[in-house]
Amino acid sequence: MNRFDSITQKLQIQYPIVQAPMLGVTTPEMVAAIANEGGLGSLPVGGLSPEKTTELIQKTKQLTQRPFAVNLFAHAIPEVDLAKASQMQDFLVGLGKKYGLEFPELHLETLSFYSYKTQIDILIAEQIPIVSFTFGIPDDEWLQKLKASGAILIGTATCLEEALLLDQKGVDMITAQGIEAGGHRGTFLETIPLPQVGVMALVPQIMNRIGKPVLASGAINDGKTIKAAFAMGASAVQIGTAFIATTESLAIPAYQQAVLTAKDTDSQLTLAFSGRWARGLQNQFMTEVEHSGFTPLPYPIQNSLTTALRQKAQQLNKGDFTNLWSGQSAPKIHLPDCAAIFRELIRQAELTY
Amino acid sequence: MNRFDSITQKLQIQYPIVQAPMLGVTTPEMVAAIANEGGLGSLPVGGLSPEKTTELIQKTKQLTQRPFAVNLFAHAIPEVDLAKASQMQDFLVGLGKKYGLEFPELHLETLSFYSYKTQIDILIAEQIPIVSFTFGIPDDEWLQKLKASGAILIGTATCLEEALLLDQKGVDMITAQGIEAGGHRGTFLETIPLPQVGVMALVPQIMNRIGKPVLASGAINDGKTIKAAFAMGASAVQIGTAFIATTESLAIPAYQQAVLTAKDTDSQLTLAFSGRWARGLQNQFMTEVEHSGFTPLPYPIQNSLTTALRQKAQQLNKGDFTNLWSGQSAPKIHLPDCAAIFRELIRQAELTY
Repeated sequence: MNRFDSITQKLQIQYPIVQAPMLGVTTPEMVAAIANEGGLGSLPVGGLSPEKTTELIQKTKQLTQRPFAVNLFAHAIPEVDLAKASQMQDFLVGLGKKYGLEFPELHLETLSFYSYKTQIDILIAEQIPIVSFTFGIPDDEWLQKLKASGAILIGTATCLEEALLLDQKGVDMITAQGIEAGGHRGTFLETIPLPQVGVMALVPQIMNRIGKPVLASGAINDGKTIKAAFAMGASAVQIGTAFIATTESLAIPAYQQAVLTAKDTDSQLTLAFSGRWARGLQNQFMTEVEHSGFTPLPYPIQNSLTTALRQKAQQLNKGDFTNLWSGQSAPKIHLPDCAAIFRELIRQAELTY
Repeated sequence: MNRFDSITQKLQIQYPIVQAPMLGVTTPEMVAAIANEGGLGSLPVGGLSPEKTTELIQKTKQLTQRPFAVNLFAHAIPEVDLAKASQMQDFLVGLGKKYGLEFPELHLETLSFYSYKTQIDILIAEQIPIVSFTFGIPDDEWLQKLKASGAILIGTATCLEEALLLDQKGVDMITAQGIEAGGHRGTFLETIPLPQVGVMALVPQIMNRIGKPVLASGAINDGKTIKAAFAMGASAVQIGTAFIATTESLAIPAYQQAVLTAKDTDSQLTLAFSGRWARGLQNQFMTEVEHSGFTPLPYPIQNSLTTALRQKAQQLNKGDFTNLWSGQSAPKIHLPDCAAIFRELIRQAELTY
């Protein structure tokens, strides 16, 4: 018996370490590698088509017999403001031309988005045992469906108030995403300025009020920071940035290189890529959009508008024009693959029981 | 022998816990209470007159035989833009009239400020054993004088780059101020956007590069967070907000009440009170200045412009119009005085050796 038995038993894993779902970085190979080592892998499918969702889940299942989590984006879909979308697209087209990143334009009138609602039946059919979500809380109807399936539900909070709402809705566990974390902020309450709470302030405040397991996310990249999260009282840790520069990652070489050498202040919060606040290494695309005079459209519209340009930049390995999501703490363990990094984390954190 | 012996021996204290210097809150009584309990008290004298500096030091010495730190503001003094200062003062006068907080206006032409340079000879004459500073690094001439006096020097960094500069200048220890910390940001590098690095990201990155003791500051308010800071590798912790609501504090009742009940997102960074970014509980004064259309003047000019209005608000116990500096983590130990809180911190952190 040890203090982590409760959460590892619930999640059917060996070690209280979660690989963060990183859309655009995480592959079935990454999820399976973590699962096979005894951690919780998280497969991100937010915004993907039903077909792609099924494909990725089945691919992951082929690579591991262990349980893994599937991560949804639980946001509402906004109306497209065609005039503003057109302005932004024109700006991006101009940017592409200027920097040799020409891309096919979207037909804005037919722009459409996949909701998590089209994915939940797939998750249930695939008997996914753990469903995590961010950007909000699934509507009651869908939440009840997930609960009835027996899946363990993990919500994402960036402040105490969001955690209290998740608790009221009956999630099983809460990921507390500190301001240090890379990628999109999970924030869903719009009544307050963007919460920018450090993980050391966030985790204890949520734990004080909610008697459910809290997973600490942000700034965790080695044995010492894992131990610190556990000292605060976290039941598990979620780690993302530390797995970006690996053979299982979709990150282009320029991104992997940049993230490995980043320091604390190299990342900034930006709306430029997706219309949702996200932490990434400051680059030219962010600067260009921020100085354009145009306001990024709401998520996921801005995300769709910038996708083709980013894909072009990725094909050319140009890190200046694609999102370089990264937390405030660069990877500290420089090993080539996720399994090796995971094992080293376990060793450093002295979790080898 | 334990892992803290080195730092406690250097600082001649018993426990690796520093009471943060909080100008406007900290009293000689607070510093002495912490010193007498075996911690490091810090007396803030930034911007005070030579006479006041001497008076506070001597008062503290009367209350404790133990060593304590004196904290300086190591910034340069900017020129006063009379036109902008006059605009801001007019706005504040209007605000005062509107809310029953009339105050005497400053003669802007004769506005003057005390530099840390007028204080260093006093610290040396008073044989202050530990000098901490923030908002910059004293000029070489003054730094050398302090070193020659035998004082231990503690600089404040809010990002790795600032820590590297402090290290190059030969400070003995570095306080790593995470974004969670209350009050003024110690930031002094102006070449980057304001660093907003969480303490979990900041402390390890500084420790990786610098072989000197690092003091963790931000979000620390109980035994668990102290243990977390030590797990990260910090040599000591600095704690401020936890001591605001005490009998030794200058904080008015409305401030003490507000800080005790604050939650993670209640504090915001603002320039409104002083012209330097500082974290305080959001209140009406911040909102009014931020919506005024006037840009706060550089520190310490804005600070001087707002002083009389704030004093008036304090006299009337109106928390809406004075600075309510607070970190992201409210006090967790609700005991009336600093000694009792300090002893409880020691007990919870299991530092009673």
